[in-house]
Amino acid sequence: MAFSRIARNGLRRTGGTFGSYAEKGTPCEGISNHSWSSSPFLKNVKAGSNLSYFSSIRKVNHASFWSRGIGGTPHYQFPNAERILEESENEYEEPRYPGLEATRPGEKPRVVVLGTGWAACRFMKGLDTKIYDVVCISPRNHMVFTPLLASTCVGTLEFRSVAEPVSRIQSALATSPNSYFYLASCTGIDTDKHEVYCETVSNGVLPQEPHQFKVAYDKLVIAAGAEPLTFGIKGVNEHAYFLREVNHAQEIRKKLLLNLMLSENPGIPEEEKNRLLHCVVIGGGPTGVEFSGELSDFIMRDVQERYSHVKDHIKVTLIEANEILSSFDVGLRQYATNHLTKCGVRLTRGVVKEVHPTKLFLSDGTEVPYGLLVWSTGVGPSQFVKSLNLPNSPGGRIGIDQWLRVPSVEDVFALGDCAGFLEQTGRPVLPALAQVAERQGKYLVELFNNIGKQNGGKAFSAKDFSLGDPFVYRHLGSMASVGRYKALVDLRQSKDAKGLSLAGFISWLIWRSAYLTRVVSWRNRFYVAVNWATTLVFGRDNSRIG
Amino acid sequence: MAFSRIARNGLRRTGGTFGSYAEKGTPCEGISNHSWSSSPFLKNVKAGSNLSYFSSIRKVNHASFWSRGIGGTPHYQFPNAERILEESENEYEEPRYPGLEATRPGEKPRVVVLGTGWAACRFMKGLDTKIYDVVCISPRNHMVFTPLLASTCVGTLEFRSVAEPVSRIQSALATSPNSYFYLASCTGIDTDKHEVYCETVSNGVLPQEPHQFKVAYDKLVIAAGAEPLTFGIKGVNEHAYFLREVNHAQEIRKKLLLNLMLSENPGIPEEEKNRLLHCVVIGGGPTGVEFSGELSDFIMRDVQERYSHVKDHIKVTLIEANEILSSFDVGLRQYATNHLTKCGVRLTRGVVKEVHPTKLFLSDGTEVPYGLLVWSTGVGPSQFVKSLNLPNSPGGRIGIDQWLRVPSVEDVFALGDCAGFLEQTGRPVLPALAQVAERQGKYLVELFNNIGKQNGGKAFSAKDFSLGDPFVYRHLGSMASVGRYKALVDLRQSKDAKGLSLAGFISWLIWRSAYLTRVVSWRNRFYVAVNWATTLVFGRDNSRIG
Repeated sequence: MAFSRIARNGLRRTGGTFGSYAEKGTPCEGISNHSWSSSPFLKNVKAGSNLSYFSSIRKVNHASFWSRGIGGTPHYQFPNAERILEESENEYEEPRYPGLEATRPGEKPRVVVLGTGWAACRFMKGLDTKIYDVVCISPRNHMVFTPLLASTCVGTLEFRSVAEPVSRIQSALATSPNSYFYLASCTGIDTDKHEVYCETVSNGVLPQEPHQFKVAYDKLVIAAGAEPLTFGIKGVNEHAYFLREVNHAQEIRKKLLLNLMLSENPGIPEEEKNRLLHCVVIGGGPTGVEFSGELSDFIMRDVQERYSHVKDHIKVTLIEANEILSSFDVGLRQYATNHLTKCGVRLTRGVVKEVHPTKLFLSDGTEVPYGLLVWSTGVGPSQFVKSLNLPNSPGGRIGIDQWLRVPSVEDVFALGDCAGFLEQTGRPVLPALAQVAERQGKYLVELFNNIGKQNGGKAFSAKDFSLGDPFVYRHLGSMASVGRYKALVDLRQSKDAKGLSLAGFISWLIWRSAYLTRVVSWRNRFYVAVNWATTLVFGRDNSRIG
Repeated sequence: MAFSRIARNGLRRTGGTFGSYAEKGTPCEGISNHSWSSSPFLKNVKAGSNLSYFSSIRKVNHASFWSRGIGGTPHYQFPNAERILEESENEYEEPRYPGLEATRPGEKPRVVVLGTGWAACRFMKGLDTKIYDVVCISPRNHMVFTPLLASTCVGTLEFRSVAEPVSRIQSALATSPNSYFYLASCTGIDTDKHEVYCETVSNGVLPQEPHQFKVAYDKLVIAAGAEPLTFGIKGVNEHAYFLREVNHAQEIRKKLLLNLMLSENPGIPEEEKNRLLHCVVIGGGPTGVEFSGELSDFIMRDVQERYSHVKDHIKVTLIEANEILSSFDVGLRQYATNHLTKCGVRLTRGVVKEVHPTKLFLSDGTEVPYGLLVWSTGVGPSQFVKSLNLPNSPGGRIGIDQWLRVPSVEDVFALGDCAGFLEQTGRPVLPALAQVAERQGKYLVELFNNIGKQNGGKAFSAKDFSLGDPFVYRHLGSMASVGRYKALVDLRQSKDAKGLSLAGFISWLIWRSAYLTRVVSWRNRFYVAVNWATTLVFGRDNSRIG
């Protein structure tokens, strides 16, 4: 009996449920089916608005994983977990591998959450931990306040001001006896057995191989985010920086300061100075525009003062295939274009064909030498999401119904950038925005708390409950800063609707105060305010650490 | 003529003047001549009090450097610097390599400073830039406020609060037309030609090989710091963390948080949990003690709250060959021992024999499994200092006279951890303390400003000037925090003198206020105060970035 189960599992797992975490620079070609030439670079999505969760294709060796589960496992690597020992009296022919077994009658139902982005964190924050135990699995132990990430690259904000530890968002993860945060990647899901399979994340600092384990769930919430789109363009993963995680921002900052200092060294030819100090941003969405705006601020104020020997060499170019900020009102777009141009950002129409270590080529043959290349052309389904044997929405996300359920399997929900409405719901796939993810998290946690109060939290028990009203998204508007105390605020509900739109200093004040109130914890709210004030008074810090 | 000069240079350089920057983990065996068994671990030195400037032995390929200087150099790599072009009319048979040529009559004298530690920064801060141009060469663009570095490892302080950009310390480096900061390692000095040879530091992020250049000086100030002592013990460089740079603190923090999270994963055996959460500190000097104190604070408050599943597994062991805080008053030492023990720090006498990835061995054969190993057993002369063809003080530092001059060569001064009084001066080599370095910097800059006012700033021109009073060091006392709002203050002038010594909460207040006033810039002073306040209110941040 044990063997038949294993065979079944092996089959299912080989069927495609794997995924893994990778650092920047790992080649992951062929991830996207989009053709760069036919797809516009910029969609109505906000890059950097969710969690870069799974990226490269590092296949799990299923055979060895499972065979070790049965027999030749060193005690060290696959010890018997306490819970399994308890159960072994009943089912001692079962393969033994560590993990959390299914909850028993009388125990609280266990919600397993994959991810620590906007959707996952909003969900966990609201979860009634009197009703549920919660287990969060993610390769990152904090949420990133993505709208302010661009500001950290140049030192306007400190890195920690935009990172919110997940145990501060939901304290049960740290303190409740059966709730946990696991720093791990999910490598597979068995929806029949109600189990997820995981592998610890060590970023190469551990001498041993990764530790594998499983977690049984009563309800599963997939909020694993999306991946940056590279359209299969050669060299992007190797040479460009994305801007979706705090360590991406750290790397961008290090590179920028390094280039500034290297270009000061004696004997560097003019051409090389110009290359080192050419910052190229690909993609004119909010992230690309805000980063360009921050860069131009940094250049106008800090580089002028602190790197005066090379101040005339530094340039910013924003390359976009279509129009910048295409989701914004046409008046705002024009304002942004004028303002950025005035601040010295060169706006260029173009499509990237290939990226080399020190230059890139556009499809019209233009050669663009660069010192720093930041890539923000939106996000698409991650390798992990593609590998799951679940229904798909248009565009390849996990398909969900109006209650954010994944149909055809029980007790599985998906939200945020990794999920999209199924075609048969008749609703459009929502843009990959923090706003959408947060709203979905809020909706879903109310649904969960509701079901839970009616004792529907356990696996296979929610069939007979009314789920209440379906999820409806109402866009509250979009904001983007463009640098030099100027921002855009577009309060229209959709691209074609009419409504208020503002640009300028007042918008910038609205932008700052809106985000300040959105920052999750009081600690970080305080730090963001302090960072802004000190930047104003003392300028940006330019120590290059590491 | 050109060739004879090259031959001379090549000879001198092969004679040993090289050095380079290396990151943690680079093997550099055999650096110290000390035998670990005969040398006590702890000397009267403060590890972490100066700049880890040069560490591994990565030999410069002199032949290729110099031959490229003559002929087969690609324009890209060794272009003609502007200054050289100007001079080429006179000396067109000279080998051409980029750099700053000697200053001409009528130009300001150029002071070249090697290093950005306490001594170098205090010197540069006070330098009269109306008289001198200053060129600072260092692989680090900021000064580290080392006494507070231990606090950043656990999140009491943010990393940037203890890093002071060098251009904020001496703004001429950024703004004055002939003053520069070069992010580079010094690879050699030609004291006859009054030139230093440098190589850019890229930390492996540049596609090209390092760029080499030279800088001519009128006066040279060597403040290149020292290196951690490992006593040739196998495995220290590979597996232990030092605590001398901000990125060391970052790595320690990452490792600590990673171990905390990994040990929470299901199925980790008890033994492995205990190993992962065993923090071992080697060396009971101020750095080791302060780090242990901070760790126990972190465990008592933050781990209890945020990692309650594993809180009983985390332990701190401080291993010291002799006595902890041996330079402090005996009463204070006893206080520290009692206090640390009460806070759960296990104090162990022992000498490390060998370090393996997950355990270390003491010389009595004891096996100590560890998850985090921090090494702070004092500092010794760096490879760069040893390679210089200059007189030596006892202990192998650069030998100096009472005016901090290096005798036998002209216009060369040395101070801080890399310098020590020559035996013939009859004075003892001063301990490697921030206090000593700073006082020397202050003394030397007054001497320089004085000479400069009398037009003695140029090379070979200071022979006839009176240098004034020699440098005299008066110890103002020592301080060390031991965690839980307790610190030691020892105001005795030397180890055997009598004087005031305090321990407890009042000392802790003195410790905090004294360091707060010592922090260099108002910006960082403000941030240190804000960090302390938020740690008190909100606890420490535990997001693991990167």
